[in-house]
Amino acid sequence: MQLKKVVLAYSGGLDTSVIIPWLKENYGCEVICFVADVGQEEELEGLEERALKAGASKLYIRDLTQEFVNDFIFPTLKAGAIYEEYLLGTSFARPLIAKNLVEIAHQEGADAIAHGATGKGNDQVRFEVTIHALDPELKVIAPWRIWDLRSREDEITYAQAKGIDVPVKKDRPYSIDRNIWHVSHEGADLEDPANPPQDDIYQMITPPEKAPDKPTFVEIGFEQGIPKTIDGKEYDGVALLRTLNKIAGENGVGILDIVENRLVGMKSRGVYETPGGTVLYKAHRSLESLTLDRDTMHFKSLVAQRYAELVYDGLWYSPLREALDAFVNATQKTVTGTVKVKLYKGNCMPVAIESPYSLYHRGIASFGYSELYDHKDAAGFINLFSLPLKVRGLMRKKAEEKA
Amino acid sequence: MQLKKVVLAYSGGLDTSVIIPWLKENYGCEVICFVADVGQEEELEGLEERALKAGASKLYIRDLTQEFVNDFIFPTLKAGAIYEEYLLGTSFARPLIAKNLVEIAHQEGADAIAHGATGKGNDQVRFEVTIHALDPELKVIAPWRIWDLRSREDEITYAQAKGIDVPVKKDRPYSIDRNIWHVSHEGADLEDPANPPQDDIYQMITPPEKAPDKPTFVEIGFEQGIPKTIDGKEYDGVALLRTLNKIAGENGVGILDIVENRLVGMKSRGVYETPGGTVLYKAHRSLESLTLDRDTMHFKSLVAQRYAELVYDGLWYSPLREALDAFVNATQKTVTGTVKVKLYKGNCMPVAIESPYSLYHRGIASFGYSELYDHKDAAGFINLFSLPLKVRGLMRKKAEEKA
Amino acid sequence: MQLKKVVLAYSGGLDTSVIIPWLKENYGCEVICFVADVGQEEELEGLEERALKAGASKLYIRDLTQEFVNDFIFPTLKAGAIYEEYLLGTSFARPLIAKNLVEIAHQEGADAIAHGATGKGNDQVRFEVTIHALDPELKVIAPWRIWDLRSREDEITYAQAKGIDVPVKKDRPYSIDRNIWHVSHEGADLEDPANPPQDDIYQMITPPEKAPDKPTFVEIGFEQGIPKTIDGKEYDGVALLRTLNKIAGENGVGILDIVENRLVGMKSRGVYETPGGTVLYKAHRSLESLTLDRDTMHFKSLVAQRYAELVYDGLWYSPLREALDAFVNATQKTVTGTVKVKLYKGNCMPVAIESPYSLYHRGIASFGYSELYDHKDAAGFINLFSLPLKVRGLMRKKAEEKA
Amino acid sequence: MQLKKVVLAYSGGLDTSVIIPWLKENYGCEVICFVADVGQEEELEGLEERALKAGASKLYIRDLTQEFVNDFIFPTLKAGAIYEEYLLGTSFARPLIAKNLVEIAHQEGADAIAHGATGKGNDQVRFEVTIHALDPELKVIAPWRIWDLRSREDEITYAQAKGIDVPVKKDRPYSIDRNIWHVSHEGADLEDPANPPQDDIYQMITPPEKAPDKPTFVEIGFEQGIPKTIDGKEYDGVALLRTLNKIAGENGVGILDIVENRLVGMKSRGVYETPGGTVLYKAHRSLESLTLDRDTMHFKSLVAQRYAELVYDGLWYSPLREALDAFVNATQKTVTGTVKVKLYKGNCMPVAIESPYSLYHRGIASFGYSELYDHKDAAGFINLFSLPLKVRGLMRKKAEEKA
Repeated sequence: MQLKKVVLAYSGGLDTSVIIPWLKENYGCEVICFVADVGQEEELEGLEERALKAGASKLYIRDLTQEFVNDFIFPTLKAGAIYEEYLLGTSFARPLIAKNLVEIAHQEGADAIAHGATGKGNDQVRFEVTIHALDPELKVIAPWRIWDLRSREDEITYAQAKGIDVPVKKDRPYSIDRNIWHVSHEGADLEDPANPPQDDIYQMITPPEKAPDKPTFVEIGFEQGIPKTIDGKEYDGVALLRTLNKIAGENGVGILDIVENRLVGMKSRGVYETPGGTVLYKAHRSLESLTLDRDTMHFKSLVAQRYAELVYDGLWYSPLREALDAFVNATQKTVTGTVKVKLYKGNCMPVAIESPYSLYHRGIASFGYSELYDHKDAAGFINLFSLPLKVRGLMRKKAEEKA
Repeated sequence: MQLKKVVLAYSGGLDTSVIIPWLKENYGCEVICFVADVGQEEELEGLEERALKAGASKLYIRDLTQEFVNDFIFPTLKAGAIYEEYLLGTSFARPLIAKNLVEIAHQEGADAIAHGATGKGNDQVRFEVTIHALDPELKVIAPWRIWDLRSREDEITYAQAKGIDVPVKKDRPYSIDRNIWHVSHEGADLEDPANPPQDDIYQMITPPEKAPDKPTFVEIGFEQGIPKTIDGKEYDGVALLRTLNKIAGENGVGILDIVENRLVGMKSRGVYETPGGTVLYKAHRSLESLTLDRDTMHFKSLVAQRYAELVYDGLWYSPLREALDAFVNATQKTVTGTVKVKLYKGNCMPVAIESPYSLYHRGIASFGYSELYDHKDAAGFINLFSLPLKVRGLMRKKAEEKA
Repeated sequence: MQLKKVVLAYSGGLDTSVIIPWLKENYGCEVICFVADVGQEEELEGLEERALKAGASKLYIRDLTQEFVNDFIFPTLKAGAIYEEYLLGTSFARPLIAKNLVEIAHQEGADAIAHGATGKGNDQVRFEVTIHALDPELKVIAPWRIWDLRSREDEITYAQAKGIDVPVKKDRPYSIDRNIWHVSHEGADLEDPANPPQDDIYQMITPPEKAPDKPTFVEIGFEQGIPKTIDGKEYDGVALLRTLNKIAGENGVGILDIVENRLVGMKSRGVYETPGGTVLYKAHRSLESLTLDRDTMHFKSLVAQRYAELVYDGLWYSPLREALDAFVNATQKTVTGTVKVKLYKGNCMPVAIESPYSLYHRGIASFGYSELYDHKDAAGFINLFSLPLKVRGLMRKKAEEKA
Repeated sequence: MQLKKVVLAYSGGLDTSVIIPWLKENYGCEVICFVADVGQEEELEGLEERALKAGASKLYIRDLTQEFVNDFIFPTLKAGAIYEEYLLGTSFARPLIAKNLVEIAHQEGADAIAHGATGKGNDQVRFEVTIHALDPELKVIAPWRIWDLRSREDEITYAQAKGIDVPVKKDRPYSIDRNIWHVSHEGADLEDPANPPQDDIYQMITPPEKAPDKPTFVEIGFEQGIPKTIDGKEYDGVALLRTLNKIAGENGVGILDIVENRLVGMKSRGVYETPGGTVLYKAHRSLESLTLDRDTMHFKSLVAQRYAELVYDGLWYSPLREALDAFVNATQKTVTGTVKVKLYKGNCMPVAIESPYSLYHRGIASFGYSELYDHKDAAGFINLFSLPLKVRGLMRKKAEEKA
């Protein structure tokens, strides 16, 4: 197949560096690179030079951190979406990056998009579903599913043959993905769920054992479900999350080690660091326990699970995710208030909640008598509440008597 | 109303002591007392004398701990049922006690059952729904919803007038309920969710700050979802739970502080200690992550929520709970294996999982190539998986072109 | 209890006529009557005179039909909400009436609201929940739960003693409720589910056997889920529903005979006539089958069930209903198009559907080959889709070999 | 690829006849044919000769009708599983046929299974998922996804080149699938949802307009959810379904015309005839309305939807389907009784229901007063039921006052 121009999701690492000449060789096309800054804390300087050296005609760099936090992370937080305990770090970064790839493809008049995700993971799905949804006519190229390179060594040989500098490999035990929300660790000895993770792998979090011996208290202020303040001080989304990442990370909060079900059909083992996110989820849930009624809370937890599945599966730009979002936003109107959280060596415990929209009514909750609640009402309530079981009891008695 | 004989759920405390003469005075009836041992670790000796002195004709004491663990706690654990974060301690003790009250009522030929639960809580519902379900013709008397006593002082005055010894009040800040699974704390300054719980209230758990500085590792063995061994040693259910309570409690594991939605319509604040239970839930869930497929896990989490609502609401003896149980049991056939858990100052982290029925397939999960998984298949998968969004994209394009 | 002023939901029938003097006698209050026109096709003339004669100081009449159709019926239609097959006729009229009762109570400075619903039905709940939600401080009086009148005869005697004209009883076999959406029939011999309904009870519908021998075709046009046209002609909501009621009713469409579960705990038997509504539900669902994707449709059907429960239970003015509404509205953006329906002796069959937002893609759906769908992709799809079961099969084989 | 022996799902039609020589040519293998009788009412005589002539070495014929009805249809009926209105005719025949293909492959020592389903439909998935689940090591060949034949003409040319008799084409407008449960029609002018189906396509059902002018009444007896009798006479499953197909078909009952969402991502249009099945679903649901409590019914409807998705998607042999089955069976213990249904020109209306386990309690349901229901209890019930909204109303009032 001949192509004119391909936009590549570029990272500067070995994989995507090798993809540049491979695309040119196989499709006779020009290659435009794109790097998204989603808070991965990696050096972006020098990337342009490296991309051009590898044969790209151009490198786009976009700082998407603000949009990532406000339009992807916070909606998911409001939904309370958790995929099998996992707080969804990588999942919602992919559609945002893919949306930008499509925009650049349109801008550049490109006819295809390429990415470096492997054929076994969720990320390939998340990239491609988004691209297909936003422009069903754009082609997608996933070299890992096509080429014959089977290992790092194959890639290095290919790179050298093409005269490309092989990026210096950081000596990391695991394959990682990082953004402002989290770091994920996979692969190597983690591939056996009987192996505990090594203790020196953490990038954002001090392991609980090495965290301070005294608790740290932090108070988070929410407005309509969105975190706005820390200890009374206002922050924009990015700054708030960075601040909380630091505080929570220092206190050992946010490590998760699970076996999860990938969309593509297999189970995989992942270790996640989500320091600030863990605190935000806990605090948000606490505030909801005060401000949402039982019916709403219980149904919202079904919505949360479906929302999480959609995000995990890469279906961000889908009509169902958008409709669930409308539901969630309607529930968040009164999720305003503050939650004080105690952080201590990996523990994260909400200890004080306050809200102007609190549905907790002390007079009614109290053991004592109050005007608003007549104990005698409970008798009537119980009689009607138990009526179906009473009738069933009568039916069974009659049935037994007959038998 | 005149009654012949009433069976009273008796505890030996002030409330149920006062109820004895009050029943006799108001219904002209004989009073039979019943005390259930569900692992509340309270002195049962001397209770008979006290009940008789207060006017009861008889005291039944039954040790229900074994039945409680095997027939109520473990099924709920297998279901993974959690009510708004709460691990359901008090909720499933009530139907068991009520079932025994009904049995004794039948044995004694009693015409009513009385209990000391207040008119604001869930326990009145749990007692009465069970009684109505098991014998729709038995009457139920809930003195707190009927009499004019409004306070502890009123009760003491009434007791003294009736010549009853007032039990020495233990000086506890909170109203508590305890059984082998948990301790709950409610009332007093906890009634304001802006107040953190005091640190000296815990009965089963050493607060994280005072727990050992070194982690404890414990390995739990499950068979078909039921915990059977600790560190390879077999235990019966009661002994296993007691052992685990001790280990987890010493390590600060199992404290929960939440605002919850009561069935009777109000929110209430509770602090719970569930040391062994917290470990069991975590370990069980980890084992399921290895042995249940995605479809089953995700649907089971809906079942878990409904199961929890039913248990919380006192609907243990209901057709839906029984049908959900059948579902749960079918899923547990392969939930067999071991989970090693790390306990450290309040943290409880599964670190190693093994099962002969593991659905984790290292060859497939690994980043490398394997015979069982062809990377190229992912292309076809993604194309069909994204087809609905692709078609939607085409429809929108056409719609936009028209407009 | 003494009250100043009570607003009564008045119908002009025996029950609410008797309530007027009873309220005055028992609460020493002034009585303000309110009649809502929700399309029940009953004579409203003369009602004022009758109310005043019975002792009321004033009668408010409000035509709520337009609001009923647009703000209650159509949102529920869009949700596709069906309660155990029942299309929810009476249920959503009650909150609207109750909202008006509260408004009038505020306007009049009344301290209570009274209604004539019995103590066994859902309507008492629907009225009172709405009143409590909109003004938690207003008192509610439900005479049927209080007074000693036990039968129609008791009421007549009481009326005569108070010098009130007893309204001429229409000789109807069943207790009915009618509005623009439906007629319900309950009571008498219908109380035994082994009895078929008599054939001459229908008010809106010609029984199928007596309907025309030729089918009638009718084409309904929807915009964003709301019916707007019949056979290409525009109607406002009320006129559209009346027109459709006539056409569908003549063709025998819309009879439902079910046993349902009341909120207050018992089962009841009801026969319903919902001619136009039945056609609208069918047509709307057909249009959704063309314009909503699978994920959205399937989740929406869970939402529909919960929506129906809330409406049936009288929880219209609840945060959950409002949040579900936001979800539903988000899904309806593309539910625009026309559905041709064939009506024939009780049958209602959509036969042709068209929409500018159709997600049905003939090229892809066709058995033939098309550019947009590569048959080979299915192989990859199936391999990944079946991977979890494949892995399970391997696990079982291994487990069997060991055993 | 070289293979030794392939088992082919054979029908005797053009497609599977052509597949025989194609398999031999492309895999150098022996071909074993298998025909399943699932009640498709097609001539099986002569099939063996035809298969052998086309090059097969053997033909297996198995009558699976009994197993189909008892182990696939009735469990699905008990579940009440309906996929987007569709009563699941083809879906549950496929796993049964695939299970037999696997058995024969084992018996014959074959190394692969082939089928004639196209690359656009659900059937390929249903066949292959089942095969992978039951024997993950067996190969699957789907010629339609591989070969270059693109049309009937291509197939005929190929057949003639191989010296195979081309089966006489029945002149049918649509592509159909038939078994004892249903007939489906797809393709041709049905591919445009704006076209009504032609009236002469029906094989099992007399169109309503041509059905008798008098209603037919039929009484179905169920035991634990399984239909056992018609008008009091006992039948085995197959005979019962055949009898009911005839009665319902004659009365025009069971036609469905829908657009549905295929698993493989596109919408398709299908017209279905399910005469007896429609009656059984209606009758079964009616009986459940009498014998299941509200909680069970409402949750079961969620289970029904998930069950339907699994069956439709070919996931019959999956752990979730099996666990849902356990749930369903637990609910059916009391679904015993009779339902009289009125069939009239396409209408199917339950008119009388009776059960020894009825939870309908006439004394309680009746408008009159009864011992078992105290109208006054409703007041207490409503007060607690509306408490959350009352508290919310108070909160809003306070919030407004502050603002």
